[in-house]
Amino acid sequence: MGKKIVIVGGVAAGPKAACRLKRLMPDAEVTVIDQDNLISYGGCGIPYYVSGDVSDEKELRSTSFHMVRDEYFFEKAKGVKTLTSTRALAIDRQKKTVQLEDLKTGTRSEIAYDTLMLATGSKPVMPPIPGNDAAGVFTVTDLHKAIAIKDMIAKGKVGKAVVIGGGAIGIEMAEALTDLWGIETSLVEFMDQLLPRIIDWPMAAILTKHLRDHNVAVYLKEAAEEIVVKDGKVAAVRTGKRTLDADMVLMAVGVRPNTQLAKDAGLLVAASGGIVVNERMQTSDPDIYAAGDCVDIINLVSGKRFVAPFGSMANREGRVAADNIAGIPSVFRGGVGSFIVKAFELSLGAVGLSLDRARAEGFDADCSLSAPSDRAHFFPGQSILCLELVFDKRTRKVLGLQGTGAVNDALSARIDAAAVALAAGATIDDFANIEMAYSPPFSPAIDPINAAAYIADNLCDKRMAQISMEDFYQWMADPSSHPDWQVLDVRYAKEAVPFIERFGTSLWTSLPYDQVRDRYRELPSDKKFLVFCNAGSRSFEIQLFLASVGFKDCRVVPGGFNIVRRMGADWLPVS
Amino acid sequence: MGKKIVIVGGVAAGPKAACRLKRLMPDAEVTVIDQDNLISYGGCGIPYYVSGDVSDEKELRSTSFHMVRDEYFFEKAKGVKTLTSTRALAIDRQKKTVQLEDLKTGTRSEIAYDTLMLATGSKPVMPPIPGNDAAGVFTVTDLHKAIAIKDMIAKGKVGKAVVIGGGAIGIEMAEALTDLWGIETSLVEFMDQLLPRIIDWPMAAILTKHLRDHNVAVYLKEAAEEIVVKDGKVAAVRTGKRTLDADMVLMAVGVRPNTQLAKDAGLLVAASGGIVVNERMQTSDPDIYAAGDCVDIINLVSGKRFVAPFGSMANREGRVAADNIAGIPSVFRGGVGSFIVKAFELSLGAVGLSLDRARAEGFDADCSLSAPSDRAHFFPGQSILCLELVFDKRTRKVLGLQGTGAVNDALSARIDAAAVALAAGATIDDFANIEMAYSPPFSPAIDPINAAAYIADNLCDKRMAQISMEDFYQWMADPSSHPDWQVLDVRYAKEAVPFIERFGTSLWTSLPYDQVRDRYRELPSDKKFLVFCNAGSRSFEIQLFLASVGFKDCRVVPGGFNIVRRMGADWLPVS
Repeated sequence: MGKKIVIVGGVAAGPKAACRLKRLMPDAEVTVIDQDNLISYGGCGIPYYVSGDVSDEKELRSTSFHMVRDEYFFEKAKGVKTLTSTRALAIDRQKKTVQLEDLKTGTRSEIAYDTLMLATGSKPVMPPIPGNDAAGVFTVTDLHKAIAIKDMIAKGKVGKAVVIGGGAIGIEMAEALTDLWGIETSLVEFMDQLLPRIIDWPMAAILTKHLRDHNVAVYLKEAAEEIVVKDGKVAAVRTGKRTLDADMVLMAVGVRPNTQLAKDAGLLVAASGGIVVNERMQTSDPDIYAAGDCVDIINLVSGKRFVAPFGSMANREGRVAADNIAGIPSVFRGGVGSFIVKAFELSLGAVGLSLDRARAEGFDADCSLSAPSDRAHFFPGQSILCLELVFDKRTRKVLGLQGTGAVNDALSARIDAAAVALAAGATIDDFANIEMAYSPPFSPAIDPINAAAYIADNLCDKRMAQISMEDFYQWMADPSSHPDWQVLDVRYAKEAVPFIERFGTSLWTSLPYDQVRDRYRELPSDKKFLVFCNAGSRSFEIQLFLASVGFKDCRVVPGGFNIVRRMGADWLPVS
Repeated sequence: MGKKIVIVGGVAAGPKAACRLKRLMPDAEVTVIDQDNLISYGGCGIPYYVSGDVSDEKELRSTSFHMVRDEYFFEKAKGVKTLTSTRALAIDRQKKTVQLEDLKTGTRSEIAYDTLMLATGSKPVMPPIPGNDAAGVFTVTDLHKAIAIKDMIAKGKVGKAVVIGGGAIGIEMAEALTDLWGIETSLVEFMDQLLPRIIDWPMAAILTKHLRDHNVAVYLKEAAEEIVVKDGKVAAVRTGKRTLDADMVLMAVGVRPNTQLAKDAGLLVAASGGIVVNERMQTSDPDIYAAGDCVDIINLVSGKRFVAPFGSMANREGRVAADNIAGIPSVFRGGVGSFIVKAFELSLGAVGLSLDRARAEGFDADCSLSAPSDRAHFFPGQSILCLELVFDKRTRKVLGLQGTGAVNDALSARIDAAAVALAAGATIDDFANIEMAYSPPFSPAIDPINAAAYIADNLCDKRMAQISMEDFYQWMADPSSHPDWQVLDVRYAKEAVPFIERFGTSLWTSLPYDQVRDRYRELPSDKKFLVFCNAGSRSFEIQLFLASVGFKDCRVVPGGFNIVRRMGADWLPVS
C-alpha cells in the first residue's frame, strides 16, 4: 500500500491536491475530509446561481463535461476517498493521526496519515450586531446558504433586501438581487468607499455611480448597527443614519482564515490570520502542508504577508502542495492580488497595491489616471477603459494597476498582463514597452497599458503636473478655496458650453486644443489653469506648451471628462 | 532657435516621435517629410474601412476626439511642420542635410538637420508574375489603395475576388470582402498552411476551417502563377492547380522594410532587411535614428533579429527614439512578436515562437495543446479557447503561446500575459503560477494559461505521453499504418457512438472515464491506446492510470474533440 495522505477540506485546494496526488502517486491512499456533504464546488459562482444565470447548484459542482463532483465521482473517476459530513476535530502530530467526528451519527474515529494537508478555507465574518441570528439573515459562503437564499427569493418572499459589505461578494450579490429578481436592494458599507483597500476613490466612485444607475441604493460611511427583527424574522436594518426595510439581509463583510485546527495543533499562524507556510506550502510541521484561503502568503509587490482568498489561488497552491508531498520541488512564490469583479455592465479590476495602500506601506507613491479606448477608437463597439497606474516615484517601480471597463475581457487583459509584470518587479519603463497583441478589433495602436506608463513616466520626470481627482472635486465643490484656479477646457467649444453656463467664464474657460498655440495670449495671466479635456492627453500637451510660454503652475485634470462623467458629481452639468 | 529635427516618414513612428519631441523640446524645429499627402493614419484599420465597419477613411486618420490628423492639425495642435507630397531623395551625412523633391511641382530642395530620424516604413511585396500590373490588382498598404478598392467594390464592379497571401492582411481582407460585401472570395497561399511561421498546423487548420465555413475558398500549397488579363483588367488568377475568376486581386504576400534611403546613405542594414539600430533606436550614424517597420529588432525569445511591422511597435519605438533625441536614455529592448487577428467569429493570436520555428532555431521544443473554457464553464456565454504552449524541454523555458477563441478579448488576455512573461524569460513553472484575475464572468478557477503550463510540466517530466495532432490525423487517414493503435474514447458512451459506427470497435473503443478504474481489465492487452476525450484532461488521467496498471505506451490525443472538431477532417463523423 502507498503513502497515506489525509486532506482536511474539500472545496478547492483540497480536491485539487487530492487529484494531483493520485496522478503523481497512483498507489497513494488519499482521503479528503469535509464537514459538509457538498464538496468541490465553485463558491465564486454563488452570486450567479442566486441571480439565475446558473440555473442549478449542481452546475457549480460539476466538471466542464457535466459530471457532478460528489463522493462517487471522487472514488470512481479519481480514486480519491472522501469522508463528507465529517469534522476533523484535532490533529495528534506525534501519533500522526486526525480525530474525526461523523456529523450524521456522532461517531468518533481516528485516521492516520503519513502526510496531512490542511485546506480548511475561510469562514465569513458575522458582524456582532443585535438581530444577526434572525431568519432571513444570511452569509454568502457555502452552497447550502446559496440554496436557501435562492429558495426564499424564488418563493417571492423577498421584496427588499440589504447587503452589508461593499466587497466583491456584496457587489455581486447586489447585482444578482437587483438585476434578475428586481428586488429593491441597498448596499451598506461602513468605509467611505466600496472595495476599500483594493481600489482608490476615483474607481470606487465610478462603481458606486454605476450601481446607483442600476437601482442599487448604495450607502457609504454607514455601519449596520442593528437588524430589526419582527416575529423572529428580519424586518429592517438600522444604520447610524437610517432604517432600511428588508425581508432579507446578506452579510458580506469579509472572510477569515479557518485555522482553529492548525492553532490547536500548535502550528504557526501569522498575524494576517493565515497558517504560516513556506514556498513549498509546508507548515511549521514538515509533515503537514496547507493551501487555499487558510494560508498566509507573500505579497510580491509589498513584500509583506497577506491572505488571498480566491479559488484560483487555492488551486495553484493546492497543486504546489501536492507536488511537494509527492517529492516534486515546485514552489509558490506568492501573489500580487489580481482581482476582478463584474457589476452590471461594468468590469472593475485591480492588481498590486492601491495608491492609498502603497502610501500606507511607505512607498513614495503617485498614480496616473487615464481613460483610453479599449480597442482602436474607430472600431465599432469600442468603449472606454478607466485606468489608474500606481507607481513609486523613487524607484520607478510599478506598484499596482486598477481600472474599470465594459464587460468584455479588455480590462482583464490589462490587469493580467500587469500581474505578470508586477510579479517580475517591473518598472514604469518596462510597462511602457509591454507588447500587447495589436489589431484594431482588440486594442489601440498605443495600448492603454503603455499609455498609462507613458503618463507615469511624464509624472515621475516632472514633465506632467496633475491635480489629484480628490483635490479637483474638492475645489469644484468649493471654488472659493482657490480663487486663483480656473479650468481651461481644451475640448471643442461646444463641449464646454454647459460648463460655462453653469460656472461662468471666471471659473471655466474654453480654448480649443488646436487654437491654443495661436491664442494663448488671450488667457488671463493671473490664473493657475486646471487643463481639462476628454482623456487627459490633450491637457498634458497644453500644460507643457503653456509652461513653455510662461504659464507656470498649470495642472492636468487626469483622465478628464471620461473619468469625471463616470464618477459623476452634483456639480456636473451633464448626466 | 532650437534643435532642427527632420523625420522622414509620416505614418506611425514618425508622427509619434515628432509629437513627443515637441513635448520634450518645445523649442525644437520638428519637420516630418512624407511622399504621400495622407499621413498619420491607422493602416491596420484598412480592412475595416474596406469592409464598411469604418465608414470613412477620415476616421483612420482622426484622433479619438475626432480631429483629422492633417498638415493643419500637426502645425496648429502639435507645432510640428509637415512636408507632404515630398520625397526624401538622399541624405548627405557630412553636410547633415536631406535632399527633397516636391512631388507636385518637381522642385528640389535641401533641408538641414541636427538629428535625423528615419521612419520610412515598409513596402508591400509584389509577386513578379505576369499580369500583376493589370487594373483591379491592388496591394493593401496605403489609404489611396484602400479608397480605390472600396470604391471599386461600392460601385458593384466586384463579384469575385482573389486574395493572394494567407497572412494577417490577407485573412482580414478576405473577411472584409466576404462578410460585408458578399463577394465570392478565394484566398490563395503557397505554403501548406495559413499564417506560416506564426502559428503551427493545428491552429492554422482551425482557421482554415473557420474561413471555409464562412464562405472563403481557401487554397493551400498553390502559388499564383499568372494574373489573367482581359482588356487591361484582371479576369482571373491561374494557380498551378486551377483558374479562379476574379474581378479584383488583392496582393497580400507580405512587406519589406523600406531602406533604400538608409542604404544609399551608407547606414548598416541587417540580414533581416531592416535598418540596424541599438537599444536607443540609433542607427550606425549617431545623428540618425530609425524606428518602425523599417528597423531590425531583437527577438527576445530566440535572441535573433527580426522585423516586426506593427503599428503598435512603431509607436513604442518612435517614443524611445524621440526620448533619446531629446536626451532621455529610454531603451527599446526588442520584441516577442505578439500577434492577433480577427477572422469572422474567431480570434487567433500568437506570441513568441511557433513549434516549427522553435525547432528550426535549435530548441529542444515540444508543445501542449489544450481546449479549456475561456471563463467559468458554468457561466453563460463561455466559449472554448484552443491553446498551444511551446516550450523547451531542456531548460523548461516557455518559447511561445498561440491559440484561437471567440472574438471577446479572452484570447488577447492570455497572449498579452504570455507576452510579458516571455519578455521576462519565464519558465513553465512561472506560467503555472501566473495570477490571472479570477471571477466566473472573466475566467475559470484554473486559468487556461496555468492549465497549459500544467500540461507542459507533465510533458517535460514525462508523466504525460501524447501523440502529436499531425501523427493522429495521419493515422486516422490510414489506420493500417499502425494496426496496434486503438482510440480509447473516455467520453460519455453516447458521444462515442458515431465514431464507433464509422470506424468499428477495433479502431475506436469506448470506456467512459468514471468506469475505467472498475473496467480496465476488459481492454485488449495487445493495443496501444490513444486516449480521447473533449479537452485532454480526462485522457491524461486515464493514460496515467492505465500506465499504473500495466498498460504502457498509451498516449493522449491532446486537446481532444474540442480541437479536432474545430480543425475538422474528412474522417470526422460529425460536423
